[in-house]
Amino acid sequence: MNFCSNCGQKISFGKVPDDEKERFYCENCNIIHYQNPKIIVGTLPRWEDKILLCKRAIEPRKNLWTLPAGFLENNERIEDGAIRETTEEANAEIKIVRLFSVYSLPHVSQIYCIFLADLVNLNFHPGDESLEVELFKKEEIPWQKIAFNSIRFTLDKFVNATDLTDHEVHLGTWNKK
Amino acid sequence: MNFCSNCGQKISFGKVPDDEKERFYCENCNIIHYQNPKIIVGTLPRWEDKILLCKRAIEPRKNLWTLPAGFLENNERIEDGAIRETTEEANAEIKIVRLFSVYSLPHVSQIYCIFLADLVNLNFHPGDESLEVELFKKEEIPWQKIAFNSIRFTLDKFVNATDLTDHEVHLGTWNKK
Repeated sequence: MNFCSNCGQKISFGKVPDDEKERFYCENCNIIHYQNPKIIVGTLPRWEDKILLCKRAIEPRKNLWTLPAGFLENNERIEDGAIRETTEEANAEIKIVRLFSVYSLPHVSQIYCIFLADLVNLNFHPGDESLEVELFKKEEIPWQKIAFNSIRFTLDKFVNATDLTDHEVHLGTWNKK
Repeated sequence: MNFCSNCGQKISFGKVPDDEKERFYCENCNIIHYQNPKIIVGTLPRWEDKILLCKRAIEPRKNLWTLPAGFLENNERIEDGAIRETTEEANAEIKIVRLFSVYSLPHVSQIYCIFLADLVNLNFHPGDESLEVELFKKEEIPWQKIAFNSIRFTLDKFVNATDLTDHEVHLGTWNKK
Protein backbone atom coordinates (compact mmCIF):
# COMPACT_ATOMS: atom_id res chain seq x y z
CA MET A 1 0.00 0.00 0.00
CA ASN A 2 1.58 3.26 -1.21
CA PHE A 3 -1.32 5.67 -1.76
CA CYS A 4 -4.63 6.43 -0.04
CA SER A 5 -7.43 4.66 -1.96
CA ASN A 6 -9.83 7.42 -0.90
CA CYS A 7 -7.95 10.63 -1.82
CA GLY A 8 -4.89 9.41 -3.76
CA GLN A 9 -2.27 11.07 -1.52
CA LYS A 10 0.87 9.30 -0.27
CA ILE A 11 0.00 6.90 2.57
CA SER A 12 1.58 6.80 6.05
CA PHE A 13 2.18 3.79 8.29
CA GLY A 14 2.45 3.79 12.07
CA LYS A 15 0.67 4.37 15.35
CA VAL A 16 -2.94 5.59 15.26
CA PRO A 17 -5.08 6.66 18.26
CA ASP A 18 -6.52 3.95 20.57
CA ASP A 19 -4.83 1.11 18.72
CA GLU A 20 -1.90 -1.08 19.69
CA LYS A 21 -1.24 -2.18 16.12
CA GLU A 22 0.40 0.05 13.52
CA ARG A 23 -1.85 0.83 10.54
CA PHE A 24 -1.78 2.43 7.13
CA TYR A 25 -3.42 5.87 7.49
CA CYS A 26 -3.86 9.02 5.43
CA GLU A 27 -2.70 12.34 6.84
CA ASN A 28 -4.67 14.15 4.15
CA CYS A 29 -8.17 12.70 4.59
CA ASN A 30 -7.66 11.04 8.03
CA ILE A 31 -8.83 7.59 6.96
CA ILE A 32 -7.29 4.51 8.57
CA HIS A 33 -6.88 1.63 6.11
CA TYR A 34 -7.35 -1.61 8.06
CA GLN A 35 -6.06 -4.83 6.55
CA ASN A 36 -7.55 -8.13 7.71
CA PRO A 37 -7.39 -11.85 6.91
CA LYS A 38 -9.39 -13.34 4.06
CA ILE A 39 -11.73 -16.32 4.31
CA ILE A 40 -11.41 -19.26 1.92
CA VAL A 41 -14.56 -21.40 1.78
CA GLY A 42 -15.01 -24.82 0.29
CA THR A 43 -16.52 -28.26 0.65
CA LEU A 44 -15.58 -31.89 1.23
CA PRO A 45 -18.23 -33.53 -1.00
CA ARG A 46 -18.92 -37.24 -0.38
CA TRP A 47 -20.77 -39.97 -2.23
CA GLU A 48 -21.11 -43.33 -0.50
CA ASP A 49 -17.55 -44.23 0.58
CA LYS A 50 -15.88 -41.76 -1.79
CA ILE A 51 -14.94 -38.08 -1.74
CA LEU A 52 -14.63 -35.60 -4.60
CA LEU A 53 -11.33 -33.93 -5.50
CA CYS A 54 -10.42 -31.48 -8.27
CA LYS A 55 -7.15 -31.37 -10.20
CA ARG A 56 -6.13 -27.71 -10.47
CA ALA A 57 -5.96 -26.20 -13.97
CA ILE A 58 -4.36 -22.98 -12.74
CA GLU A 59 -1.39 -21.80 -10.69
CA PRO A 60 -0.51 -22.00 -7.89
CA ARG A 61 -0.17 -25.78 -7.58
CA LYS A 62 -1.38 -26.55 -11.10
CA ASN A 63 -1.91 -30.30 -11.71
CA LEU A 64 -2.25 -31.04 -7.98
CA TRP A 65 -5.46 -32.17 -6.30
CA THR A 66 -7.63 -30.08 -4.00
CA LEU A 67 -11.12 -29.74 -2.57
CA PRO A 68 -13.33 -27.17 -4.31
CA ALA A 69 -12.64 -23.91 -2.47
CA GLY A 70 -11.99 -20.22 -3.02
CA PHE A 71 -12.28 -16.72 -1.54
CA LEU A 72 -15.54 -15.76 0.13
CA GLU A 73 -17.00 -12.73 -1.66
CA ASN A 74 -18.47 -9.57 -0.18
CA ASN A 75 -22.23 -9.80 0.53
CA GLU A 76 -22.13 -13.60 0.66
CA ARG A 77 -23.12 -15.97 3.48
CA ILE A 78 -20.30 -18.33 4.37
CA GLU A 79 -22.18 -21.49 3.35
CA ASP A 80 -23.34 -19.89 0.08
CA GLY A 81 -19.70 -19.16 -0.80
CA ALA A 82 -18.79 -22.80 -0.23
CA ILE A 83 -21.65 -23.94 -2.49
CA ARG A 84 -20.70 -21.40 -5.19
CA GLU A 85 -17.06 -22.53 -5.24
CA THR A 86 -18.17 -26.17 -5.51
CA THR A 87 -20.31 -25.26 -8.51
CA GLU A 88 -17.59 -23.17 -10.16
CA GLU A 89 -14.78 -25.71 -9.78
CA ALA A 90 -16.59 -29.04 -10.05
CA ASN A 91 -20.11 -28.29 -11.34
CA ALA A 92 -21.15 -30.49 -8.43
CA GLU A 93 -24.60 -30.28 -6.88
CA ILE A 94 -24.30 -30.65 -3.12
CA LYS A 95 -26.15 -30.34 0.16
CA ILE A 96 -24.14 -28.88 3.05
CA VAL A 97 -24.00 -31.21 6.08
CA ARG A 98 -22.02 -29.07 8.54
CA LEU A 99 -18.82 -27.09 9.07
CA PHE A 100 -15.96 -29.61 9.21
CA SER A 101 -12.63 -27.77 9.50
CA VAL A 102 -11.27 -24.29 10.21
CA TYR A 103 -7.59 -23.90 9.34
CA SER A 104 -5.51 -20.77 9.97
CA LEU A 105 -2.60 -19.76 7.73
CA PRO A 106 -1.29 -16.79 9.75
CA HIS A 107 1.73 -16.14 7.49
CA VAL A 108 -0.57 -15.35 4.55
CA SER A 109 -3.52 -14.11 6.65
CA GLN A 110 -5.99 -16.69 5.37
CA ILE A 111 -8.62 -18.74 7.21
CA TYR A 112 -9.98 -21.87 5.46
CA CYS A 113 -13.54 -22.94 6.35
CA ILE A 114 -14.42 -26.31 4.81
CA PHE A 115 -17.93 -27.79 5.00
CA LEU A 116 -18.74 -31.49 4.86
CA ALA A 117 -21.30 -31.96 2.08
CA ASP A 118 -23.28 -34.71 0.35
CA LEU A 119 -23.29 -34.94 -3.43
CA VAL A 120 -26.88 -34.85 -4.69
CA ASN A 121 -26.03 -36.64 -7.96
CA LEU A 122 -23.03 -37.67 -10.07
CA ASN A 123 -23.38 -34.98 -12.74
CA PHE A 124 -20.14 -33.24 -11.74
CA HIS A 125 -17.55 -32.19 -14.32
CA PRO A 126 -14.56 -29.83 -14.37
CA GLY A 127 -15.13 -26.08 -14.23
CA ASP A 128 -12.69 -23.57 -15.77
CA GLU A 129 -10.23 -23.87 -12.88
CA SER A 130 -10.13 -27.70 -12.84
CA LEU A 131 -8.55 -30.20 -15.24
CA GLU A 132 -10.30 -33.23 -13.75
CA VAL A 133 -12.91 -33.90 -11.07
CA GLU A 134 -12.94 -37.40 -9.61
CA LEU A 135 -14.26 -39.50 -6.75
CA PHE A 136 -11.68 -41.22 -4.54
CA LYS A 137 -12.04 -43.92 -1.90
CA LYS A 138 -10.17 -43.12 1.31
CA GLU A 139 -7.36 -45.49 0.38
CA GLU A 140 -7.05 -43.93 -3.09
CA ILE A 141 -6.42 -40.34 -1.98
CA PRO A 142 -3.26 -39.07 -3.77
CA TRP A 143 -1.52 -37.80 -0.63
CA GLN A 144 1.67 -36.89 -2.46
CA LYS A 145 -0.24 -34.75 -4.94
CA ILE A 146 -2.45 -32.66 -2.65
CA ALA A 147 -2.17 -28.95 -3.47
CA PHE A 148 -2.39 -27.29 -0.03
CA ASN A 149 -1.62 -28.06 3.62
CA SER A 150 -5.08 -26.84 4.63
CA ILE A 151 -6.67 -29.44 2.34
CA ARG A 152 -4.30 -32.20 3.49
CA PHE A 153 -5.28 -31.40 7.10
CA THR A 154 -8.99 -31.62 6.25
CA LEU A 155 -8.64 -34.89 4.32
CA ASP A 156 -6.57 -36.38 7.13
CA LYS A 157 -9.24 -35.51 9.71
CA PHE A 158 -11.91 -37.00 7.45
CA VAL A 159 -10.03 -40.24 6.82
CA ASN A 160 -9.23 -40.69 10.51
CA ALA A 161 -12.64 -39.69 11.87
CA THR A 162 -14.05 -42.51 13.96
CA ASP A 163 -17.55 -41.06 13.99
CA LEU A 164 -18.66 -38.71 11.21
CA THR A 165 -22.04 -38.18 12.87
CA ASP A 166 -20.19 -36.34 15.62
CA HIS A 167 -20.23 -32.59 15.05
CA GLU A 168 -16.60 -31.82 15.85
CA VAL A 169 -15.06 -28.94 13.92
CA HIS A 170 -11.36 -29.59 13.41
CA LEU A 171 -9.22 -26.54 14.18
CA GLY A 172 -5.80 -26.49 12.56
CA THR A 173 -2.98 -24.14 11.77
CA TRP A 174 0.15 -24.04 9.70
CA ASN A 175 3.17 -21.94 10.53
CA LYS A 176 5.66 -21.35 7.77
CA LYS A 177 9.01 -22.78 8.75
CA MET B 1 -12.30 3.24 -3.40
CA ASN B 2 -11.30 6.11 -5.72
CA PHE B 3 -7.56 5.70 -6.31
CA CYS B 4 -5.15 2.80 -6.80
CA SER B 5 -3.39 2.09 -3.47
CA ASN B 6 -0.35 0.85 -5.39
CA CYS B 7 0.31 3.65 -7.92
CA GLY B 8 -2.09 6.45 -6.88
CA GLN B 9 -3.88 6.76 -10.25
CA LYS B 10 -7.68 6.98 -10.59
CA ILE B 11 -9.27 3.54 -10.11
CA SER B 12 -11.65 1.78 -12.51
CA PHE B 13 -14.51 -0.59 -11.68
CA GLY B 14 -15.92 -3.30 -13.91
CA LYS B 15 -15.29 -6.59 -15.67
CA VAL B 16 -11.82 -8.15 -15.37
CA PRO B 17 -10.54 -11.27 -17.21
CA ASP B 18 -11.69 -14.72 -16.00
CA ASP B 19 -13.99 -13.33 -13.33
CA GLU B 20 -17.77 -13.14 -13.15
CA LYS B 21 -17.75 -10.41 -10.51
CA GLU B 22 -16.92 -6.79 -11.24
CA ARG B 23 -13.82 -5.53 -9.43
CA PHE B 24 -11.86 -2.39 -8.72
CA TYR B 25 -8.82 -2.45 -11.02
CA CYS B 26 -6.05 -0.09 -12.11
CA GLU B 27 -5.52 0.58 -15.80
CA ASN B 28 -2.14 2.14 -15.02
CA CYS B 29 -0.41 -0.64 -13.05
CA ASN B 30 -2.83 -3.52 -13.90
CA ILE B 31 -3.53 -4.51 -10.30
CA ILE B 32 -6.96 -5.89 -9.36
CA HIS B 33 -8.09 -4.73 -5.91
CA TYR B 34 -10.18 -7.55 -4.43
CA GLN B 35 -12.48 -6.75 -1.51
CA ASN B 36 -13.57 -9.56 0.79
CA PRO B 37 -15.51 -10.10 4.02
CA LYS B 38 -13.90 -9.53 7.41
CA ILE B 39 -13.86 -12.01 10.29
CA ILE B 40 -14.99 -11.00 13.76
CA VAL B 41 -13.73 -13.37 16.46
CA GLY B 42 -14.83 -13.62 20.06
CA THR B 43 -15.72 -15.89 22.95
CA LEU B 44 -18.65 -17.00 25.07
CA PRO B 45 -16.83 -17.33 28.43
CA ARG B 46 -18.59 -19.42 31.11
CA TRP B 47 -18.11 -19.94 34.83
CA GLU B 48 -20.27 -22.58 36.51
CA ASP B 49 -23.85 -21.70 35.45
CA LYS B 50 -22.99 -18.14 34.37
CA ILE B 51 -21.66 -16.43 31.24
CA LEU B 52 -19.61 -13.27 30.91
CA LEU B 53 -20.92 -10.19 29.09
CA CYS B 54 -19.34 -6.76 28.50
CA LYS B 55 -21.18 -3.43 28.46
CA ARG B 56 -19.82 -1.44 25.52
CA ALA B 57 -17.97 1.81 26.27
CA ILE B 58 -17.81 2.84 22.62
CA GLU B 59 -20.07 3.35 19.63
CA PRO B 60 -21.73 1.63 17.91
CA ARG B 61 -24.20 0.34 20.51
CA LYS B 62 -22.59 2.08 23.48
CA ASN B 63 -24.09 1.00 26.84
CA LEU B 64 -25.45 -2.25 25.39
CA TRP B 65 -24.15 -5.72 26.32
CA THR B 66 -22.08 -7.98 24.12
CA LEU B 67 -19.66 -10.90 24.17
CA PRO B 68 -15.97 -9.97 23.92
CA ALA B 69 -15.26 -9.89 20.16
CA GLY B 70 -13.50 -7.87 17.47
CA PHE B 71 -11.81 -8.01 14.08
CA LEU B 72 -9.30 -10.78 13.43
CA GLU B 73 -5.92 -9.25 12.61
CA ASN B 74 -3.49 -10.16 9.85
CA ASN B 75 -0.97 -12.87 10.82
CA GLU B 76 -3.23 -14.17 13.58
CA ARG B 77 -4.68 -17.65 14.12
CA ILE B 78 -8.46 -17.53 14.49
CA GLU B 79 -8.47 -18.86 18.09
CA ASP B 80 -5.64 -16.49 19.08
CA GLY B 81 -7.71 -13.55 17.87
CA ALA B 82 -10.64 -14.68 20.03
CA ILE B 83 -8.38 -14.93 23.09
CA ARG B 84 -6.82 -11.50 22.37
CA GLU B 85 -10.21 -9.81 22.10
CA THR B 86 -11.33 -11.43 25.38
CA THR B 87 -8.22 -10.05 27.07
CA GLU B 88 -8.61 -6.58 25.54
CA GLU B 89 -12.30 -6.12 26.36
CA ALA B 90 -12.68 -8.05 29.63
CA ASN B 91 -9.15 -8.80 30.91
CA ALA B 92 -10.53 -12.31 31.26
CA GLU B 93 -8.26 -15.34 31.32
CA ILE B 94 -9.91 -18.17 29.39
CA LYS B 95 -9.36 -21.57 27.88
CA ILE B 96 -11.00 -22.16 24.49
CA VAL B 97 -13.37 -25.15 24.50
CA ARG B 98 -14.50 -25.21 20.86
CA LEU B 99 -15.99 -23.18 18.02
CA PHE B 100 -19.63 -22.51 18.94
CA SER B 101 -21.26 -20.26 16.31
CA VAL B 102 -20.57 -18.88 12.83
CA TYR B 103 -22.88 -16.03 11.86
CA SER B 104 -22.92 -14.32 8.47
CA LEU B 105 -23.86 -10.66 8.03
CA PRO B 106 -23.85 -10.47 4.21
CA HIS B 107 -25.07 -6.85 4.02
CA VAL B 108 -21.94 -5.64 5.82
CA SER B 109 -19.65 -8.48 4.64
CA GLN B 110 -18.80 -9.74 8.13
CA ILE B 111 -18.53 -13.30 9.47
CA TYR B 112 -18.68 -13.76 13.26
CA CYS B 113 -16.84 -16.77 14.73
CA ILE B 114 -17.57 -17.21 18.44
CA PHE B 115 -15.78 -19.81 20.57
CA LEU B 116 -17.18 -21.39 23.72
CA ALA B 117 -14.59 -20.85 26.47
CA ASP B 118 -14.07 -21.56 30.17
CA LEU B 119 -12.98 -18.78 32.50
CA VAL B 120 -9.78 -19.81 34.30
CA ASN B 121 -10.37 -17.43 37.22
CA LEU B 122 -12.58 -14.50 38.26
CA ASN B 123 -9.96 -11.77 37.84
CA PHE B 124 -11.78 -10.16 34.90
CA HIS B 125 -12.36 -6.40 34.74
CA PRO B 126 -13.30 -3.90 32.03
CA GLY B 127 -10.81 -3.07 29.28
CA ASP B 128 -10.79 0.30 27.47
CA GLU B 129 -13.76 -0.64 25.27
CA SER B 130 -15.98 -1.87 28.13
CA LEU B 131 -17.84 0.01 30.88
CA GLU B 132 -18.66 -3.12 32.91
CA VAL B 133 -17.90 -6.82 32.73
CA GLU B 134 -20.31 -9.12 34.55
CA LEU B 135 -21.38 -12.72 34.95
CA PHE B 136 -25.02 -13.52 34.18
CA LYS B 137 -27.08 -16.62 34.86
CA LYS B 138 -29.10 -17.75 31.83
CA GLU B 139 -32.29 -16.26 33.27
CA GLU B 140 -30.54 -12.94 33.96
CA ILE B 141 -29.37 -12.24 30.38
CA PRO B 142 -30.50 -8.68 29.44
CA TRP B 143 -32.13 -9.69 26.12
CA GLN B 144 -33.48 -6.19 25.46
CA LYS B 145 -30.03 -4.68 25.86
CA ILE B 146 -27.90 -6.97 23.67
CA ALA B 147 -25.77 -4.95 21.22
CA PHE B 148 -25.78 -7.13 18.09
CA ASN B 149 -27.96 -9.73 16.36
CA SER B 150 -24.95 -12.03 15.96
CA ILE B 151 -24.46 -12.03 19.74
CA ARG B 152 -28.19 -12.50 20.44
CA PHE B 153 -28.14 -15.51 18.08
CA THR B 154 -25.15 -17.03 19.91
CA LEU B 155 -26.63 -16.44 23.38
CA ASP B 156 -29.94 -17.93 22.26
CA LYS B 157 -28.24 -21.08 20.99
CA PHE B 158 -26.31 -21.36 24.26
CA VAL B 159 -29.35 -20.90 26.47
CA ASN B 160 -31.39 -23.41 24.47
CA ALA B 161 -28.67 -26.02 24.03
CA THR B 162 -29.83 -29.34 25.46
CA ASP B 163 -26.35 -30.84 25.45
CA LEU B 164 -23.29 -28.56 25.58
CA THR B 165 -20.94 -31.53 25.34
CA ASP B 166 -22.20 -31.98 21.79
CA HIS B 167 -19.89 -30.32 19.26
CA GLU B 168 -22.51 -28.65 17.07
CA VAL B 169 -21.45 -25.36 15.49
CA HIS B 170 -24.48 -23.12 15.08
CA LEU B 171 -24.66 -21.50 11.64
CA GLY B 172 -26.73 -18.35 11.42
CA THR B 173 -27.32 -15.38 9.19
CA TRP B 174 -29.01 -12.03 9.27
CA ASN B 175 -30.41 -10.25 6.27
CA LYS B 176 -31.06 -6.55 6.62
CA LYS B 177 -34.74 -5.82 6.13
